[in-house]
Amino acid sequence: MSQIIEVGKAVLSKNDELAAILRERFNKTGLRVINIVSSPGSGKTAWLQRTLARLQQQGRRGAALVGDLETDRDAQRLSQSGAPVRQIRTQGMCHLEAFMLEQHLENWNLDGVELLFLENVGNLVCPIGFDLGEHLKVLLFSTPEGEDKPLKYPPAFAWANVVLLTKMDMAEVAGFDLEFALQNIEQVHPGVPVLQTSARTGQGLDEWLKLL
Amino acid sequence: MSQIIEVGKAVLSKNDELAAILRERFNKTGLRVINIVSSPGSGKTAWLQRTLARLQQQGRRGAALVGDLETDRDAQRLSQSGAPVRQIRTQGMCHLEAFMLEQHLENWNLDGVELLFLENVGNLVCPIGFDLGEHLKVLLFSTPEGEDKPLKYPPAFAWANVVLLTKMDMAEVAGFDLEFALQNIEQVHPGVPVLQTSARTGQGLDEWLKLL
Repeated sequence: MSQIIEVGKAVLSKNDELAAILRERFNKTGLRVINIVSSPGSGKTAWLQRTLARLQQQGRRGAALVGDLETDRDAQRLSQSGAPVRQIRTQGMCHLEAFMLEQHLENWNLDGVELLFLENVGNLVCPIGFDLGEHLKVLLFSTPEGEDKPLKYPPAFAWANVVLLTKMDMAEVAGFDLEFALQNIEQVHPGVPVLQTSARTGQGLDEWLKLL
Repeated sequence: MSQIIEVGKAVLSKNDELAAILRERFNKTGLRVINIVSSPGSGKTAWLQRTLARLQQQGRRGAALVGDLETDRDAQRLSQSGAPVRQIRTQGMCHLEAFMLEQHLENWNLDGVELLFLENVGNLVCPIGFDLGEHLKVLLFSTPEGEDKPLKYPPAFAWANVVLLTKMDMAEVAGFDLEFALQNIEQVHPGVPVLQTSARTGQGLDEWLKLL
Protein backbone atom coordinates (compact mmCIF):
# COMPACT_ATOMS: atom_id res chain seq x y z
CA MET A 1 0.00 0.00 0.00
CA SER A 2 2.80 2.44 0.79
CA GLN A 3 3.83 2.62 -2.86
CA ILE A 4 0.35 3.73 -3.82
CA ILE A 5 0.24 6.40 -1.18
CA GLU A 6 3.57 7.78 -2.34
CA VAL A 7 2.45 7.86 -5.95
CA GLY A 8 -0.79 9.48 -4.79
CA LYS A 9 1.13 12.17 -2.94
CA ALA A 10 3.29 12.84 -5.98
CA VAL A 11 0.20 13.35 -8.13
CA LEU A 12 -1.29 15.61 -5.49
CA SER A 13 1.74 17.83 -5.21
CA LYS A 14 2.08 18.08 -9.00
CA ASN A 15 -1.59 19.10 -9.03
CA ASP A 16 -0.97 21.64 -6.27
CA GLU A 17 1.98 23.15 -8.12
CA LEU A 18 -0.10 23.63 -11.24
CA ALA A 19 -3.00 24.97 -9.17
CA ALA A 20 -0.68 27.59 -7.66
CA ILE A 21 0.39 28.67 -11.15
CA LEU A 22 -3.23 28.91 -12.24
CA ARG A 23 -4.14 30.93 -9.14
CA GLU A 24 -1.38 33.40 -9.90
CA ARG A 25 -2.62 33.68 -13.46
CA PHE A 26 -6.19 34.27 -12.23
CA ASN A 27 -4.99 36.94 -9.81
CA LYS A 28 -3.11 38.78 -12.57
CA THR A 29 -6.19 38.98 -14.77
CA GLY A 30 -8.54 39.75 -11.87
CA LEU A 31 -10.55 36.58 -12.40
CA ARG A 32 -12.17 35.22 -9.25
CA VAL A 33 -12.61 31.43 -9.31
CA ILE A 34 -15.20 29.44 -7.37
CA ASN A 35 -14.97 25.65 -6.93
CA ILE A 36 -18.39 24.08 -6.36
CA VAL A 37 -18.66 20.57 -4.90
CA SER A 38 -21.68 18.44 -3.96
CA SER A 39 -23.30 15.02 -4.23
CA PRO A 40 -24.83 14.12 -7.59
CA GLY A 41 -28.20 15.82 -7.95
CA SER A 42 -27.79 18.47 -5.24
CA GLY A 43 -28.64 21.22 -7.66
CA LYS A 44 -25.27 22.68 -8.71
CA THR A 45 -26.38 23.34 -12.28
CA ALA A 46 -29.78 24.79 -11.35
CA TRP A 47 -28.14 27.14 -8.85
CA LEU A 48 -25.51 28.21 -11.39
CA GLN A 49 -28.24 28.93 -13.94
CA ARG A 50 -29.88 31.33 -11.49
CA THR A 51 -26.54 32.82 -10.53
CA LEU A 52 -25.37 33.48 -14.09
CA ALA A 53 -28.73 34.97 -15.05
CA ARG A 54 -28.74 37.32 -12.05
CA LEU A 55 -25.14 38.38 -12.68
CA GLN A 56 -26.10 39.31 -16.24
CA GLN A 57 -29.02 41.41 -14.93
CA GLN A 58 -26.56 43.25 -12.71
CA GLY A 59 -24.20 43.87 -15.61
CA ARG A 60 -21.57 41.57 -14.13
CA ARG A 61 -20.05 38.75 -16.16
CA GLY A 62 -19.73 35.14 -15.07
CA ALA A 63 -18.51 32.03 -16.86
CA ALA A 64 -18.67 28.33 -16.03
CA LEU A 65 -16.50 25.28 -16.52
CA VAL A 66 -18.48 22.12 -15.89
CA GLY A 67 -17.07 18.72 -15.00
CA ASP A 68 -18.96 15.49 -15.70
CA LEU A 69 -18.05 11.88 -16.34
CA GLU A 70 -20.01 12.02 -19.58
CA THR A 71 -22.44 14.21 -21.55
CA ASP A 72 -22.51 17.95 -22.04
CA ARG A 73 -26.05 18.35 -20.67
CA ASP A 74 -25.00 20.72 -17.92
CA ALA A 75 -22.96 22.89 -20.26
CA GLN A 76 -25.95 23.09 -22.59
CA ARG A 77 -28.25 24.09 -19.72
CA LEU A 78 -25.83 26.77 -18.57
CA SER A 79 -25.18 28.12 -22.06
CA GLN A 80 -28.81 29.25 -22.23
CA SER A 81 -27.85 32.06 -19.84
CA GLY A 82 -25.66 33.53 -22.57
CA ALA A 83 -22.58 33.17 -20.36
CA PRO A 84 -19.40 31.55 -21.69
CA VAL A 85 -19.49 27.84 -20.74
CA ARG A 86 -17.16 24.93 -21.36
CA GLN A 87 -17.54 21.26 -20.47
CA ILE A 88 -14.84 18.97 -19.11
CA ARG A 89 -15.54 15.27 -19.60
CA THR A 90 -13.48 13.46 -17.00
CA GLN A 91 -13.99 10.07 -18.68
CA GLY A 92 -14.59 8.17 -15.50
CA MET A 93 -12.54 10.26 -13.06
CA CYS A 94 -14.44 11.26 -9.93
CA HIS A 95 -13.06 14.80 -9.62
CA LEU A 96 -11.56 17.72 -11.52
CA GLU A 97 -7.79 18.25 -11.49
CA ALA A 98 -5.77 21.34 -12.25
CA PHE A 99 -4.40 19.94 -15.52
CA MET A 100 -7.96 19.53 -16.88
CA LEU A 101 -8.65 23.13 -15.99
CA GLU A 102 -5.46 24.31 -17.69
CA GLN A 103 -6.34 22.40 -20.87
CA HIS A 104 -9.85 23.80 -21.04
CA LEU A 105 -8.79 27.37 -20.30
CA GLU A 106 -6.59 27.37 -23.40
CA ASN A 107 -7.82 29.62 -26.19
CA TRP A 108 -10.82 30.66 -24.14
CA ASN A 109 -11.40 34.38 -24.23
CA LEU A 110 -12.53 35.39 -20.74
CA ASP A 111 -11.90 39.13 -21.15
CA GLY A 112 -14.28 41.07 -18.97
CA VAL A 113 -15.34 38.00 -17.02
CA GLU A 114 -15.26 38.62 -13.29
CA LEU A 115 -16.30 35.23 -11.90
CA LEU A 116 -15.45 31.75 -13.16
CA PHE A 117 -17.51 28.95 -11.61
CA LEU A 118 -16.07 25.43 -11.62
CA GLU A 119 -18.84 22.86 -11.32
CA ASN A 120 -16.97 19.83 -10.03
CA VAL A 121 -18.02 16.19 -10.56
CA GLY A 122 -20.91 15.18 -8.28
CA ASN A 123 -19.01 13.55 -5.43
CA LEU A 124 -18.55 14.33 -1.74
CA VAL A 125 -15.17 12.62 -1.38
CA CYS A 126 -12.79 12.76 -4.34
CA PRO A 127 -12.78 16.46 -5.36
CA ILE A 128 -11.68 17.65 -1.91
CA GLY A 129 -8.05 16.66 -2.37
CA PHE A 130 -7.50 18.59 -5.59
CA ASP A 131 -6.76 22.30 -5.49
CA LEU A 132 -7.90 24.00 -8.71
CA GLY A 133 -6.40 27.39 -7.96
CA GLU A 134 -9.80 28.60 -6.77
CA HIS A 135 -10.41 31.54 -4.42
CA LEU A 136 -13.61 30.20 -2.89
CA LYS A 137 -14.58 26.62 -2.01
CA VAL A 138 -18.34 26.11 -1.98
CA LEU A 139 -20.17 23.01 -0.81
CA LEU A 140 -23.79 22.42 -1.82
CA PHE A 141 -25.92 20.14 0.30
CA SER A 142 -29.59 19.55 -0.58
CA THR A 143 -32.33 19.04 1.98
CA PRO A 144 -33.50 15.64 0.57
CA GLU A 145 -30.04 14.23 1.32
CA GLY A 146 -30.73 14.37 5.05
CA GLU A 147 -29.37 16.41 7.92
CA ASP A 148 -26.68 13.87 8.91
CA LYS A 149 -24.48 14.37 5.84
CA PRO A 150 -22.01 16.73 7.60
CA LEU A 151 -21.29 13.99 10.15
CA LYS A 152 -20.84 11.39 7.42
CA TYR A 153 -18.68 13.46 5.06
CA PRO A 154 -16.70 15.70 7.43
CA PRO A 155 -13.74 16.32 5.08
CA ALA A 156 -16.01 17.95 2.49
CA PHE A 157 -17.66 20.19 5.08
CA ALA A 158 -14.32 21.08 6.66
CA TRP A 159 -12.95 21.95 3.21
CA ALA A 160 -15.67 24.46 2.35
CA ASN A 161 -15.40 28.24 2.83
CA VAL A 162 -19.16 28.44 2.59
CA VAL A 163 -21.97 25.87 2.68
CA LEU A 164 -25.13 26.28 0.63
CA LEU A 165 -28.20 24.40 1.82
CA THR A 166 -30.07 23.84 -1.47
CA LYS A 167 -33.64 22.81 -2.29
CA MET A 168 -34.95 24.59 0.82
CA ASP A 169 -38.36 24.58 -0.92
CA MET A 170 -38.36 20.78 -0.46
CA ALA A 171 -37.26 20.84 3.19
CA GLU A 172 -40.72 20.26 4.62
CA VAL A 173 -41.66 17.41 2.29
CA ALA A 174 -38.23 15.84 2.89
CA GLY A 175 -38.80 16.04 6.66
CA PHE A 176 -35.53 17.97 6.88
CA ASP A 177 -34.51 18.97 10.40
CA LEU A 178 -32.88 22.36 9.77
CA GLU A 179 -31.73 22.96 13.35
CA PHE A 180 -30.01 19.58 13.52
CA ALA A 181 -28.40 20.12 10.11
CA LEU A 182 -27.00 23.53 11.14
CA GLN A 183 -25.77 22.03 14.39
CA ASN A 184 -24.01 19.22 12.47
CA ILE A 185 -22.33 21.65 10.08
CA GLU A 186 -21.20 23.80 13.01
CA GLN A 187 -19.80 20.72 14.76
CA VAL A 188 -17.73 19.68 11.74
CA HIS A 189 -16.68 23.18 10.67
CA PRO A 190 -17.22 25.78 13.41
CA GLY A 191 -18.02 29.23 12.09
CA VAL A 192 -18.44 28.34 8.42
CA PRO A 193 -21.15 30.55 6.84
CA VAL A 194 -24.28 28.68 5.76
CA LEU A 195 -26.75 30.07 3.21
CA GLN A 196 -30.27 28.66 2.91
CA THR A 197 -31.17 28.59 -0.78
CA SER A 198 -33.60 27.40 -3.40
CA ALA A 199 -32.96 27.59 -7.14
CA ARG A 200 -36.73 27.28 -7.65
CA THR A 201 -37.85 30.19 -5.50
CA GLY A 202 -34.65 32.24 -5.63
CA GLN A 203 -34.27 32.08 -1.83
CA GLY A 204 -30.77 33.07 -0.77
CA LEU A 205 -29.75 34.43 -4.18
CA ASP A 206 -29.20 38.01 -3.01
CA GLU A 207 -27.11 36.89 -0.05
CA TRP A 208 -25.07 34.63 -2.35
CA LEU A 209 -24.40 37.40 -4.86
CA LYS A 210 -23.34 39.74 -2.09
CA LEU A 211 -20.90 37.10 -0.89
CA LEU A 212 -19.46 36.76 -4.40
CA MET B 1 0.45 8.85 -15.51
CA SER B 2 1.03 5.30 -16.80
CA GLN B 3 2.69 4.30 -13.54
CA ILE B 4 -0.41 5.26 -11.60
CA ILE B 5 -2.68 3.32 -13.89
CA GLU B 6 -0.50 0.23 -13.54
CA VAL B 7 -0.47 0.50 -9.75
CA GLY B 8 -4.23 1.04 -9.88
CA LYS B 9 -4.69 -2.12 -11.92
CA ALA B 10 -2.54 -4.12 -9.52
CA VAL B 11 -4.69 -3.01 -6.58
CA LEU B 12 -7.81 -3.86 -8.52
CA SER B 13 -6.71 -7.37 -9.39
CA LYS B 14 -5.61 -8.06 -5.81
CA ASN B 15 -9.07 -6.86 -4.73
CA ASP B 16 -10.70 -9.09 -7.35
CA GLU B 17 -8.73 -12.13 -6.20
CA LEU B 18 -9.84 -11.63 -2.62
CA ALA B 19 -13.41 -10.97 -3.77
CA ALA B 20 -13.43 -14.30 -5.61
CA ILE B 21 -12.27 -16.07 -2.43
CA LEU B 22 -15.00 -14.33 -0.43
CA ARG B 23 -17.64 -15.25 -3.03
CA GLU B 24 -16.63 -18.90 -2.81
CA ARG B 25 -16.87 -18.71 0.97
CA PHE B 26 -20.33 -17.10 0.75
CA ASN B 27 -21.48 -19.80 -1.67
CA LYS B 28 -20.33 -22.59 0.63
CA THR B 29 -22.29 -21.21 3.57
CA GLY B 30 -25.31 -20.32 1.45
CA LEU B 31 -25.01 -16.60 2.22
CA ARG B 32 -26.33 -14.34 -0.51
CA VAL B 33 -24.56 -10.97 -0.63
CA ILE B 34 -26.02 -7.74 -2.02
CA ASN B 35 -23.83 -4.71 -2.81
CA ILE B 36 -25.81 -1.45 -2.60
CA VAL B 37 -24.45 1.71 -4.21
CA SER B 38 -25.90 5.23 -4.52
CA SER B 39 -25.19 8.95 -4.12
CA PRO B 40 -25.04 10.27 -0.56
CA GLY B 41 -28.56 10.69 0.78
CA SER B 42 -30.40 8.51 -1.73
CA GLY B 43 -31.99 6.51 1.06
CA LYS B 44 -29.87 3.35 1.31
CA THR B 45 -30.20 3.15 5.10
CA ALA B 46 -33.94 3.91 5.19
CA TRP B 47 -34.58 1.25 2.55
CA LEU B 48 -32.44 -1.30 4.40
CA GLN B 49 -34.34 -0.57 7.61
CA ARG B 50 -37.62 -1.46 5.88
CA THR B 51 -36.04 -4.48 4.21
CA LEU B 52 -34.57 -5.95 7.40
CA ALA B 53 -37.83 -5.41 9.30
CA ARG B 54 -39.90 -7.09 6.59
CA LEU B 55 -37.48 -10.02 6.36
CA GLN B 56 -37.84 -10.52 10.09
CA GLN B 57 -41.65 -10.55 9.77
CA GLN B 58 -41.29 -13.26 7.15
CA GLY B 59 -39.04 -15.30 9.40
CA ARG B 60 -36.06 -14.76 7.10
CA ARG B 61 -32.78 -13.42 8.46
CA GLY B 62 -30.78 -10.54 7.03
CA ALA B 63 -27.62 -8.79 8.20
CA ALA B 64 -25.92 -5.58 7.14
CA LEU B 65 -22.38 -4.29 6.80
CA VAL B 66 -22.35 -0.53 6.45
CA GLY B 67 -19.58 1.58 4.95
CA ASP B 68 -19.08 5.23 5.86
CA LEU B 69 -16.18 7.65 5.96
CA GLU B 70 -16.98 8.38 9.59
CA THR B 71 -19.61 7.77 12.29
CA ASP B 72 -21.65 4.67 13.06
CA ARG B 73 -25.01 6.41 12.70
CA ASP B 74 -26.22 4.08 9.95
CA ALA B 75 -25.21 0.98 11.87
CA GLN B 76 -27.10 2.30 14.89
CA ARG B 77 -30.20 2.98 12.79
CA LEU B 78 -30.07 -0.49 11.27
CA SER B 79 -29.41 -2.26 14.58
CA GLN B 80 -32.86 -1.17 15.75
CA SER B 81 -34.28 -3.84 13.44
CA GLY B 82 -32.66 -6.48 15.63
CA ALA B 83 -30.59 -7.74 12.69
CA PRO B 84 -26.83 -8.25 13.04
CA VAL B 85 -25.09 -5.08 11.84
CA ARG B 86 -21.46 -4.01 11.61
CA GLN B 87 -19.94 -0.69 10.55
CA ILE B 88 -16.89 -0.20 8.36
CA ARG B 89 -15.25 3.20 8.72
CA THR B 90 -13.28 3.76 5.54
CA GLN B 91 -11.37 6.70 7.01
CA GLY B 92 -11.57 8.86 3.95
CA MET B 93 -11.76 6.20 1.23
CA CYS B 94 -14.63 6.67 -1.19
CA HIS B 95 -15.60 3.01 -1.57
CA LEU B 96 -15.55 -0.39 0.12
CA GLU B 97 -12.87 -2.91 -0.83
CA ALA B 98 -12.82 -6.67 -0.38
CA PHE B 99 -10.11 -6.51 2.31
CA MET B 100 -12.34 -4.34 4.50
CA LEU B 101 -15.12 -6.85 4.11
CA GLU B 102 -12.82 -9.73 5.02
CA GLN B 103 -11.64 -7.90 8.16
CA HIS B 104 -15.15 -7.12 9.34
CA LEU B 105 -16.49 -10.61 8.65
CA GLU B 106 -13.94 -12.08 11.05
CA ASN B 107 -15.45 -13.46 14.24
CA TRP B 108 -18.92 -12.51 13.12
CA ASN B 109 -21.43 -15.27 13.64
CA LEU B 110 -23.79 -15.19 10.66
CA ASP B 111 -25.25 -18.67 11.19
CA GLY B 112 -28.79 -18.78 9.88
CA VAL B 113 -28.41 -15.48 8.02
CA GLU B 114 -29.64 -15.77 4.45
CA LEU B 115 -28.94 -12.28 3.10
CA LEU B 116 -26.01 -9.96 3.81
CA PHE B 117 -26.48 -6.38 2.62
CA LEU B 118 -23.38 -4.28 1.99
CA GLU B 119 -24.21 -0.58 2.20
CA ASN B 120 -21.39 0.98 0.22
CA VAL B 121 -20.06 4.53 0.73
CA GLY B 122 -22.36 7.15 -0.83
CA ASN B 123 -20.68 7.67 -4.18
CA LEU B 124 -21.69 7.06 -7.80
CA VAL B 125 -18.17 6.64 -9.14
CA CYS B 126 -15.60 4.96 -6.89
CA PRO B 127 -17.40 1.82 -5.61
CA ILE B 128 -18.09 0.49 -9.13
CA GLY B 129 -14.54 -0.74 -9.70
CA PHE B 130 -14.35 -2.90 -6.58
CA ASP B 131 -15.85 -6.39 -6.56
CA LEU B 132 -16.87 -7.39 -3.04
CA GLY B 133 -17.77 -10.98 -3.85
CA GLU B 134 -21.43 -10.00 -4.04
CA HIS B 135 -24.14 -11.91 -5.92
CA LEU B 136 -26.31 -8.91 -6.68
CA LYS B 137 -25.33 -5.33 -7.56
CA VAL B 138 -28.02 -2.81 -6.66
CA LEU B 139 -28.05 0.86 -7.58
CA LEU B 140 -30.32 3.28 -5.72
CA PHE B 141 -31.27 6.52 -7.41
CA SER B 142 -33.62 8.97 -5.65
CA THR B 143 -36.15 11.12 -7.46
CA PRO B 144 -34.83 14.48 -6.08
CA GLU B 145 -31.49 13.77 -7.80
CA GLY B 146 -33.07 14.33 -11.20
CA GLU B 147 -33.87 12.13 -14.16
CA ASP B 148 -30.61 12.81 -16.00
CA LYS B 149 -28.34 10.94 -13.56
CA PRO B 150 -28.15 7.75 -15.70
CA LEU B 151 -26.71 9.82 -18.56
CA LYS B 152 -24.20 11.49 -16.26
CA TYR B 153 -23.04 8.39 -14.38
CA PRO B 154 -23.34 5.65 -17.00
CA PRO B 155 -20.75 3.28 -15.44
CA ALA B 156 -22.79 2.99 -12.23
CA PHE B 157 -26.00 2.27 -14.12
CA ALA B 158 -24.26 -0.21 -16.44
CA TRP B 159 -22.78 -1.96 -13.37
CA ALA B 160 -26.12 -2.60 -11.65
CA ASN B 161 -28.11 -5.84 -11.89
CA VAL B 162 -31.14 -3.93 -10.67
CA VAL B 163 -31.96 -0.23 -10.25
CA LEU B 164 -34.17 1.04 -7.42
CA LEU B 165 -35.85 4.39 -7.94
CA THR B 166 -36.16 5.62 -4.35
CA LYS B 167 -38.21 8.41 -2.71
CA MET B 168 -41.02 7.92 -5.23
CA ASP B 169 -43.26 9.69 -2.67
CA MET B 170 -41.27 12.86 -3.43
CA ALA B 171 -41.37 12.48 -7.22
CA GLU B 172 -44.13 15.00 -7.78
CA VAL B 173 -42.69 17.68 -5.50
CA ALA B 174 -39.28 17.14 -7.09
CA GLY B 175 -40.79 17.57 -10.55
CA PHE B 176 -39.35 14.19 -11.45
CA ASP B 177 -40.01 13.06 -15.03
CA LEU B 178 -40.45 9.30 -14.56
CA GLU B 179 -40.78 8.45 -18.25
CA PHE B 180 -37.59 10.29 -19.12
CA ALA B 181 -35.73 8.67 -16.21
CA LEU B 182 -36.78 5.17 -17.28
CA GLN B 183 -35.81 5.98 -20.85
CA ASN B 184 -32.37 7.17 -19.69
CA ILE B 185 -31.79 4.03 -17.61
CA GLU B 186 -32.84 1.85 -20.56
CA GLN B 187 -30.48 3.76 -22.84
CA VAL B 188 -27.47 3.24 -20.56
CA HIS B 189 -28.32 -0.33 -19.52
CA PRO B 190 -30.91 -1.95 -21.80
CA GLY B 191 -33.12 -4.48 -20.05
CA VAL B 192 -32.01 -3.79 -16.47
CA PRO B 193 -34.97 -4.23 -14.08
CA VAL B 194 -36.13 -1.03 -12.38
CA LEU B 195 -38.21 -1.00 -9.19
CA GLN B 196 -40.13 2.09 -8.11
CA THR B 197 -39.85 2.35 -4.34
CA SER B 198 -40.43 4.50 -1.28
CA ALA B 199 -39.09 3.68 2.17
CA ARG B 200 -41.76 6.00 3.59
CA THR B 201 -44.82 4.39 2.04
CA GLY B 202 -43.39 0.91 1.51
CA GLN B 203 -43.98 1.14 -2.24
CA GLY B 204 -42.04 -1.58 -4.09
CA LEU B 205 -41.11 -3.52 -0.95
CA ASP B 206 -42.98 -6.69 -1.94
CA GLU B 207 -41.46 -6.68 -5.40
CA TRP B 208 -37.99 -6.15 -3.90
CA LEU B 209 -38.35 -9.00 -1.44
CA LYS B 210 -39.53 -11.31 -4.18
CA LEU B 211 -36.44 -10.38 -6.17
CA LEU B 212 -34.20 -11.18 -3.20
